[in-house]
Amino acid sequence: MKNKLSQLGEFGLISLIRKNVHSTKDVLLGIGDDTAVLSAQGSCHQLFTTDMLLEDVHFTRRTNARAIGHKALACNISDIAAMGGLPSAAVISLGLPAEVEIDFVKEIYRGINALAKRFSVAIVGGDTVRSEKIIINVALLGWVKKQELVTRSGARQGDMIFVTGPLGKSFETGKHLSFTPRVAESQFLVKRFLPTAMIDISDGLSVDLGHILKESRVGAYLWEEKIPKTKGATLSQALSDGEDFELLFTVSQKTGKQLMRRRKDQLQFYPIGEIIDSPKRLKFLDNAGKEKDFPLIGYKHF
Amino acid sequence: MKNKLSQLGEFGLISLIRKNVHSTKDVLLGIGDDTAVLSAQGSCHQLFTTDMLLEDVHFTRRTNARAIGHKALACNISDIAAMGGLPSAAVISLGLPAEVEIDFVKEIYRGINALAKRFSVAIVGGDTVRSEKIIINVALLGWVKKQELVTRSGARQGDMIFVTGPLGKSFETGKHLSFTPRVAESQFLVKRFLPTAMIDISDGLSVDLGHILKESRVGAYLWEEKIPKTKGATLSQALSDGEDFELLFTVSQKTGKQLMRRRKDQLQFYPIGEIIDSPKRLKFLDNAGKEKDFPLIGYKHF
Repeated sequence: MKNKLSQLGEFGLISLIRKNVHSTKDVLLGIGDDTAVLSAQGSCHQLFTTDMLLEDVHFTRRTNARAIGHKALACNISDIAAMGGLPSAAVISLGLPAEVEIDFVKEIYRGINALAKRFSVAIVGGDTVRSEKIIINVALLGWVKKQELVTRSGARQGDMIFVTGPLGKSFETGKHLSFTPRVAESQFLVKRFLPTAMIDISDGLSVDLGHILKESRVGAYLWEEKIPKTKGATLSQALSDGEDFELLFTVSQKTGKQLMRRRKDQLQFYPIGEIIDSPKRLKFLDNAGKEKDFPLIGYKHF
Repeated sequence: MKNKLSQLGEFGLISLIRKNVHSTKDVLLGIGDDTAVLSAQGSCHQLFTTDMLLEDVHFTRRTNARAIGHKALACNISDIAAMGGLPSAAVISLGLPAEVEIDFVKEIYRGINALAKRFSVAIVGGDTVRSEKIIINVALLGWVKKQELVTRSGARQGDMIFVTGPLGKSFETGKHLSFTPRVAESQFLVKRFLPTAMIDISDGLSVDLGHILKESRVGAYLWEEKIPKTKGATLSQALSDGEDFELLFTVSQKTGKQLMRRRKDQLQFYPIGEIIDSPKRLKFLDNAGKEKDFPLIGYKHF
């Protein structure tokens, strides 16, 4: 029997692709982080990322069209924020059924444009193709100051782990469509409390923390009762639901303590655990500080 | 009755999008050319483009998978070549059905990588989503020396019109899958015979020449018997079939004559007509030099 994609899984597929792609000397970081990092002249690196949204996977024909456009750009901006950068320019491919109403397409673009304006993203090109289902692919460029770049691989033993907001039930609450990419939080952090590692939570806390642990070759404790949960969400949902698009980051103990002591403003940072020296291991501590196991279910794409 | 996309057509849709998108000061050229042109530090502008291929629109499940990968990158490289530039880095989104064989995906990537290596394109990121039909979206960056940038808008009365190869029947012959993007021809031209306008032929000669005429606010004569035709193709097919991915360009009379007198090497340039001062009008001259009408049928996406 031949091997089907379903047997490989999404991360298996990504590893397979990652091993075999062509690279050049200008690539500082290729496949395997929130965005690629490309060398550029001047004080910045260039960032480059892409995300595809499909009808009946990420939204339906009854989803608010403006929200679809918003989300298509927002999840890319979230990736740029996870590197410590700011977005700059996007190209957008649209697959559209012939029977779709023009107003639906206009509304998708209103959603894209409103967010583009807010975060100074120029929409500079695209492609349109007739398709059976609606497809939106956004590819986004951005910039990051060289000294402000944050990847997944810098977490060290003793670092504190933080998230920028409550987690879980993003699909049920509609947050997955309407979220604000955490650019303000990211800029605040990289300028004053430079994280050692950062990622945006798209596949669920446990899976995305797993990426940091793997790339940084470390392990982690999570303090069960400290994990901020969306109202009505269980701990399991907070750990495993996808598409919260909060930032998950690590900072040194010293920086973490400064971050917790700072004057509170509109930006929220929740300490949820600590990096330990057991490669890839993820442990949970209950209220009494006792270690416990937790069944982890990640977002499954295939 | 509400307006459906099918009533608007592809170019109607693009105009609608073009009028309403957010831009920034770094955008030298946005939607409406083969690629976007972004300002950059140093001696080059940055180019940015995207193309999406869909199963049952651009290929089928029985198409050679390596050829699908080749085409997905090649049509983007062709856009970069049409601006006078060289490609640099790509991100790739894949929509894949769960029942697709892993070998099929590997073959797609072999096609992408072989071409990437040949034209020094780094594959730096992507997205994978489960879908009912196969989808490949490539977004490609490139660079063009500032003095070598060629757009669609520079054609002037008296300029000669050239193409880089025979046209028509690209789908029947399989050229639409296996073509070599005209990077060598483009580099040769911009360094020695700088075109006044250039475009790649994706929608058919008459439609793509129409884009140059519209953006340059000029008209054109085409010399019917000079248009190079693929073996077995009719004049109508050479004029109207899509996806030949040859370059169509204009040069001054003087440069055109130099180009025709040059020592012949492997690069072919066919003179096919002349730019005239009648905005947007396209005329045909038969063998006797007599003006004739020709019904034009363009590639229709919606």
